[in-house]
Amino acid sequence: MIKVAVMGFGTIGSGVVEVLSINKESIAKRVGDTIEVKYVLDLRDFEGDPIQSKIVHDYKTIAEDPEVSIVVEAMGGVEPAYTFVKAMLEAGKDVATSNKALVAEKGAELLELAKNKNVNFQFEASVGGGIPIIRPLKSCLTADVIEEITGIVNGTTNYMMTEMSEKGVDFDDVLKDAQAKGYAEKDPTADIEGYDAGRKIAILTSLVCGQQVDFEDIHTEGISHISSTDIKYAKTMGRAIKLLATSKKVGNGYAAIVAPFLLQAEHPLYSVNGVFNAIFVKGNVLGDAMFYGSGAGKLPTASAVVADIVEMAKHPHKHIPIEWRQEKLELVDYKDFECRFFVRTSDSVDAVTNIFGQVDFVTVEGVSDEIGFVTESMSEAEFEKYASQLTNMIQMIRVK
Amino acid sequence: MIKVAVMGFGTIGSGVVEVLSINKESIAKRVGDTIEVKYVLDLRDFEGDPIQSKIVHDYKTIAEDPEVSIVVEAMGGVEPAYTFVKAMLEAGKDVATSNKALVAEKGAELLELAKNKNVNFQFEASVGGGIPIIRPLKSCLTADVIEEITGIVNGTTNYMMTEMSEKGVDFDDVLKDAQAKGYAEKDPTADIEGYDAGRKIAILTSLVCGQQVDFEDIHTEGISHISSTDIKYAKTMGRAIKLLATSKKVGNGYAAIVAPFLLQAEHPLYSVNGVFNAIFVKGNVLGDAMFYGSGAGKLPTASAVVADIVEMAKHPHKHIPIEWRQEKLELVDYKDFECRFFVRTSDSVDAVTNIFGQVDFVTVEGVSDEIGFVTESMSEAEFEKYASQLTNMIQMIRVK
Repeated sequence: MIKVAVMGFGTIGSGVVEVLSINKESIAKRVGDTIEVKYVLDLRDFEGDPIQSKIVHDYKTIAEDPEVSIVVEAMGGVEPAYTFVKAMLEAGKDVATSNKALVAEKGAELLELAKNKNVNFQFEASVGGGIPIIRPLKSCLTADVIEEITGIVNGTTNYMMTEMSEKGVDFDDVLKDAQAKGYAEKDPTADIEGYDAGRKIAILTSLVCGQQVDFEDIHTEGISHISSTDIKYAKTMGRAIKLLATSKKVGNGYAAIVAPFLLQAEHPLYSVNGVFNAIFVKGNVLGDAMFYGSGAGKLPTASAVVADIVEMAKHPHKHIPIEWRQEKLELVDYKDFECRFFVRTSDSVDAVTNIFGQVDFVTVEGVSDEIGFVTESMSEAEFEKYASQLTNMIQMIRVK
Repeated sequence: MIKVAVMGFGTIGSGVVEVLSINKESIAKRVGDTIEVKYVLDLRDFEGDPIQSKIVHDYKTIAEDPEVSIVVEAMGGVEPAYTFVKAMLEAGKDVATSNKALVAEKGAELLELAKNKNVNFQFEASVGGGIPIIRPLKSCLTADVIEEITGIVNGTTNYMMTEMSEKGVDFDDVLKDAQAKGYAEKDPTADIEGYDAGRKIAILTSLVCGQQVDFEDIHTEGISHISSTDIKYAKTMGRAIKLLATSKKVGNGYAAIVAPFLLQAEHPLYSVNGVFNAIFVKGNVLGDAMFYGSGAGKLPTASAVVADIVEMAKHPHKHIPIEWRQEKLELVDYKDFECRFFVRTSDSVDAVTNIFGQVDFVTVEGVSDEIGFVTESMSEAEFEKYASQLTNMIQMIRVK
């Protein structure tokens, strides 16, 4: 029997306990042994709940129990998760986490500690919820040089953009609706400003390049400035606006950005709607691939954590290497990123043409006193130079 | 240095040699050793081609060379591939193959031989070309009971259905076009009658249930009976017609079928167009997931074969278990499969209502002398009983 401990009995932690119970039999068959939850670490007591008998309040109870071989961290945030996870690895236990903040900031360090202790630190659930993406990146797409990785990795904002697009409602209304439905938090900043997506693309980029990418270095724009008028323009162009977290190989380096993009209907990410997530990967020999699924939610996320448990349980006392060195990678300046830009302005057609040269104008029925246009492909730096010559730029959205 | 041999220098075999060369450096980094092609087995001599010096005509040259540790089989067909692969495994070499016919028929047997010899038999490229699906199924979706697996796994027919839908052309014309473009073979039977898709869903179902599923047991219908009028009906209903290979858990068993289905716009497979493939998986805790990418083509397929090489090269002399026993699984009769059915008939509305009760009628502009309708959900057996009472059924397509 393999004994595990779960740190944090919130949505994900309780989901892990539930999945281990629902699929006890099939999991035991795959592992070749049964898995039992011995401890659940939480501040609360869960009086009267069946989990009560397993609750402990001190992480050292777990760290010091040699019977526990695998620990799940589902507390969220960097501290005290970092201290607890470190103690578990030091004590020779495998750790699986769903905590993107911890992985983005301390992933490389914890992986090195795991290597030194001949145990594992796994984090499939930290990006894309239930979607298998970490393991496919490190064990499936190994024949390729990854040229691009672009994700819809935040279900809250994708739900909001989908609602705005389908119902024509404005940002503030759709945010209230998302909060009422529990898709957005009371303080929605981390989601709507793109910080959550930034951590996730930092993790994915680190795995692709094998070095530490700091999320603070990634230029991040959210969706709070997107209006129903922008959506009308998007529809006229046959496009959808999606918050993308994207990272591209540029020479020997990588450039990364989180921002809303106008996607054409032919792009595989175009039809990823609602709370679903998807990660698009372009390999130099594979071409385009995409991994789609539930990016959040109790059971889907727990499914990914438990898949980590299964892999670690199948390989006891064996470190499975993941290349992610602590040495920091300096990202290529996102201003070298080339793309086309969609602009709304109250400047005249002549003024626009004088500044940008050849552009594609877009006219939307019922929208007056402004014009919309799409530039040729140019770097962000070039665009800024031109755009500064406009008298009044109402909006800019990048075009993919 | 790890020495490999490639059997068959056709599209896939030459693609493998090319990928190993293009990405030599990044692959060496991942494996921790360089990979060199020592032999290429082919009937031809490739006079003047750089590959000429590596060509051998006798597979025993490879089997008997202890320097070769990994062999790629890219010849296609069951024989002589089966004899050659068996000899390589017997000789203690790892084998990677892209050959669905071989895997569907002999997969379980070759896996057992590989296990006994403590080597590996891997076949990521046999389903979905470059799309990682075999490895995700066995090493990522391990927390779940897989309730359904449904794929667009044949690029030829998906290209044809997409063209028919976008251009309104008829089957015969689109087949000629696909043949001219090299997407369809001169004898297109295996693709258009669904046999290719049948082998692939047999492999996937075998992996899901861990037992042998014979493709001959899977009820298979192709797309040659689909007309441009059917496409018009589909569009009216906001649906697309796709050739699906699908397998569902029914009680403790599995039911599988290959047939054209009417897919609603909300289904993730709806927007998989052209030669792209995708595999949709429903887990009991994960929910819906989808893997999308290039289902065929030289480099994408070779990318999957080389990913197998990388995995095997990273774990020399170590058998990686894949649960797929030779014991045959009796499939649940597909006639127990429940779905809705779309029907075109020259019978009257009254006759239809008398036979089927409540149905949804569909009217298409410009189509007369017939009516279209969609039944309630019922088993295939029930449907057949009702349908036999129609005087003239022009068409039946299942609805997903």
